[in-house]
Amino acid sequence: MKGNTVFFNSAPAVASAAAVGGKMEGDGPMSACFDEINEDPFFSCDTFEQGESRLLREAVLRALDKGSLKKEQIDVILGGDLLDQCVGTTYGIRDLDIPYLGIYGACSTVTEGLLLSSLFVDGGYASRALAVTSSHFCAAERQYRFPLNYGGQRTPTSQYTATAAGALVVSAERLPPYVRAATVGKVVDMGVTDAANMGAAMAPAAYSSIKRFLADTGLRPDFFDAIVTGDLGKVGSRLLCELFERDGIDIRSLHRDCGTMLYSFEEQDVHAGASGAGCAASMLCGFFVPKLRSGEFKNILFAATGALLSPTVNAQGESIPSISHAVWLSYETGTVPDIRFKGRRLS
Amino acid sequence: MKGNTVFFNSAPAVASAAAVGGKMEGDGPMSACFDEINEDPFFSCDTFEQGESRLLREAVLRALDKGSLKKEQIDVILGGDLLDQCVGTTYGIRDLDIPYLGIYGACSTVTEGLLLSSLFVDGGYASRALAVTSSHFCAAERQYRFPLNYGGQRTPTSQYTATAAGALVVSAERLPPYVRAATVGKVVDMGVTDAANMGAAMAPAAYSSIKRFLADTGLRPDFFDAIVTGDLGKVGSRLLCELFERDGIDIRSLHRDCGTMLYSFEEQDVHAGASGAGCAASMLCGFFVPKLRSGEFKNILFAATGALLSPTVNAQGESIPSISHAVWLSYETGTVPDIRFKGRRLS
Repeated sequence: MKGNTVFFNSAPAVASAAAVGGKMEGDGPMSACFDEINEDPFFSCDTFEQGESRLLREAVLRALDKGSLKKEQIDVILGGDLLDQCVGTTYGIRDLDIPYLGIYGACSTVTEGLLLSSLFVDGGYASRALAVTSSHFCAAERQYRFPLNYGGQRTPTSQYTATAAGALVVSAERLPPYVRAATVGKVVDMGVTDAANMGAAMAPAAYSSIKRFLADTGLRPDFFDAIVTGDLGKVGSRLLCELFERDGIDIRSLHRDCGTMLYSFEEQDVHAGASGAGCAASMLCGFFVPKLRSGEFKNILFAATGALLSPTVNAQGESIPSISHAVWLSYETGTVPDIRFKGRRLS
Repeated sequence: MKGNTVFFNSAPAVASAAAVGGKMEGDGPMSACFDEINEDPFFSCDTFEQGESRLLREAVLRALDKGSLKKEQIDVILGGDLLDQCVGTTYGIRDLDIPYLGIYGACSTVTEGLLLSSLFVDGGYASRALAVTSSHFCAAERQYRFPLNYGGQRTPTSQYTATAAGALVVSAERLPPYVRAATVGKVVDMGVTDAANMGAAMAPAAYSSIKRFLADTGLRPDFFDAIVTGDLGKVGSRLLCELFERDGIDIRSLHRDCGTMLYSFEEQDVHAGASGAGCAASMLCGFFVPKLRSGEFKNILFAATGALLSPTVNAQGESIPSISHAVWLSYETGTVPDIRFKGRRLS
């Protein structure tokens, strides 16, 4: 580690990635990014929770298929989700017979999984590691807010939890994109207590990790084709850009947020945008990885963001701690000193 | 990885370890293993959940103190707990300003944290990594079973969730115990649906991981001074020994279970024993690490065990998937072929 950033000198590759979504995701502008759209919120199961497990399992199997991999070729799965005790994942992978390490980073889970998978492969501990996460609108509403039947009205700052899952396989193959470095997030809590304004709670965490990544690597923001956040939505995205503006850095032209990409603000009733662990995961696996594979993007900094609250402690009046892990994905390999720095240096 | 087992060739050390407990733990036979006993179930906070965060935070600070470490010297914390969304940990470490990766393995969390911390240090990614977990009887009862005020009667197979936390620092120092290898657990579900019989649900997971560890390393059970499980309790411990007996292997004289060690069956009303992520963590940090440090134990295989259910899916009729990660801790360093194998070979 330099500072808070881990460098992967062997540049492990994202060898395969898959995204599965629900009806809303299929109706949105990103529908082509999904390998599979299933319009049944139960995913042919009896409950939403079982449905989420099926959704996650499907993403794992799709990622294996796309990489022409058998499950025996995966040394370890790193996964988690938003359901209490991460049951979306544990029940989803239950019958796969693959070693499993449970992770929890709320909506930042995909970058935590990508970081740890890269560690396993770069360190020579595993040949292939699989990272997976999911979220499910109906299961999340019931658990975090109100059962759908209640018909509660959502506030303007609220975000719509994606029914989506993303899975990716990291290996030592020579196939872009490569994972070059990653900054481990710190818990950041600026005192936001409104659980219907996750974007505001999470923006400072994204700012903290992106800023530390840039400082640790010496890279400048416009080295990247895009600086991507997980699910800040409209409100959090604006705040993130304003936080960087205070440092004299304008990231607006570079910044993309999965939470503002997944749905159509005009045609879908999603208030401040999308959220959920499956939002960043499906956009990473279905949108950004393909563009990095083809070389359309050369480098992105992908900082998924998670709000680490629970309904219980939020009801007890606690504010919302957040976290963001930032991963640098690249079309190219090489070590950091090879990079021709460009753009204005981050002070 | 060989099979499902990661070998740590540099043998990272558990440089510091601390355990903090509550009143029941202080009244039990293991009270001397705790660095601090706090008899207030609220830990001077307003709610049980905040109390658990305080408990976990205290374990982190004690581990730092015992290792004469400042928090700036920790590169990454790997932690999680049993509360929904792991809020015991996220709120507990919120103000520490240390990079954090959330993990979830239910009561197996301490071995997952130890495994990943060892990976960070052995791979050269971190100088020091800290693993931490906790559980809290009152918070767990409310979340998983009934609020205490309800006065529900507990069944004979039920276990008593420990109010305890354990934290340990892994570093490259030359100071026993060393982490030599670890087997990543697979999700195992033998169809047990009784959430008041976690021992029965978890025993097959411990069996699976211990057996794979022995197969992958070529070590024999009696190479170890103790084969330790996390919190199988009376019921699960008996089942584990019976499962090995089917293979013609008697581990009874070697087997220790933290769930049967923490409390006095005679003097404390704990039914089948102790459970909770803090049970295995506090016994590892407060009992086994000191004995390995002094050389009283030369080698132990520590397999904490976790039940990966949630109350929601259990109420939906689902059975209980379980997991166990097994870590080999040793007074000595060296590579596996140096070991003089002894005892009967595992077939």
